[in-house]
Amino acid sequence: MTNVSTRILGLDPGLRRTGWGVIESEGSRLRWIAHGVVAPAEKAPFPERLLHLLEEVGSICAAYACDEAAIEEVFVNVNGASTLKLGHARAAVMLAPARAGLSVAEYAPSLVKKAVVGAGQADKSQVAFMIKRLLPAAGDVKADAADALAVAITHAHHRRSLSLTASLRGAA
Amino acid sequence: MTNVSTRILGLDPGLRRTGWGVIESEGSRLRWIAHGVVAPAEKAPFPERLLHLLEEVGSICAAYACDEAAIEEVFVNVNGASTLKLGHARAAVMLAPARAGLSVAEYAPSLVKKAVVGAGQADKSQVAFMIKRLLPAAGDVKADAADALAVAITHAHHRRSLSLTASLRGAA
Repeated sequence: MTNVSTRILGLDPGLRRTGWGVIESEGSRLRWIAHGVVAPAEKAPFPERLLHLLEEVGSICAAYACDEAAIEEVFVNVNGASTLKLGHARAAVMLAPARAGLSVAEYAPSLVKKAVVGAGQADKSQVAFMIKRLLPAAGDVKADAADALAVAITHAHHRRSLSLTASLRGAA
Repeated sequence: MTNVSTRILGLDPGLRRTGWGVIESEGSRLRWIAHGVVAPAEKAPFPERLLHLLEEVGSICAAYACDEAAIEEVFVNVNGASTLKLGHARAAVMLAPARAGLSVAEYAPSLVKKAVVGAGQADKSQVAFMIKRLLPAAGDVKADAADALAVAITHAHHRRSLSLTASLRGAA
């Protein structure tokens, strides 16, 4: 199995704040590249806020030459109007890597927490703590970006186990 | 007041079927240009279905040289998962004209029905009937596209009354 490095863009979607994080995965090694938050102007018309998300995430894909993307699944809120808005934001965020031809994997929040912290019920501070351990170069990372880096790490683990399974099958 | 003609793209968003219709508005006259339905492959991965909506609606904007867009507001479903999916589809559909620099107006379904049929509680067959009356060149139009043409007509009426109000204010 050759260890080709892969740039993964992790995304934690939200209309007000979308966290993003880029890591490089090579074999079992992970390397932090960048992270941040996209926050469209709250007073802008709704279509412009969505466009801001699409364009900013698209620029991040291009700027860091990402190869694959991964995004958190979102909770269905008891408030239908909030669920509807979050659906819009998540689509804008997903469409950016999809337009650039990247695959976009989706992971449930509980799976992301389990992959990073080892428990599906971990809170945000535990995720941020583990991000600091797993990606020391990232420094202090706030919640939205930490969640995005956690999704990227989940995808790195998941694609690696798929790849190992495939090579074991090939060897059998 | 000069009667410059404006091409309006009306959109009735849905993940499985998105209706679209283009009309030309010049003063109080409306002219049918085109209509249809975009239906992404249901078995395609979710991000690809959204991308299909974004790209197809974008092509329609360009092909018919649309100047402005209008889209129906959607109902919050009792089923949260359905609401979430519809939010994703609607964002993909809205982002196409927004990316092309078009304004995207939003109208509640009751307002659209009132503008076309005269009653906020009209059913789909009444809307289709009135579309045939208002835009005879359109021929028989099925429900999704009829709703999209109805949104375009609503926008034509709305922008015209805004423009008339502005010119009356200017004359006062």
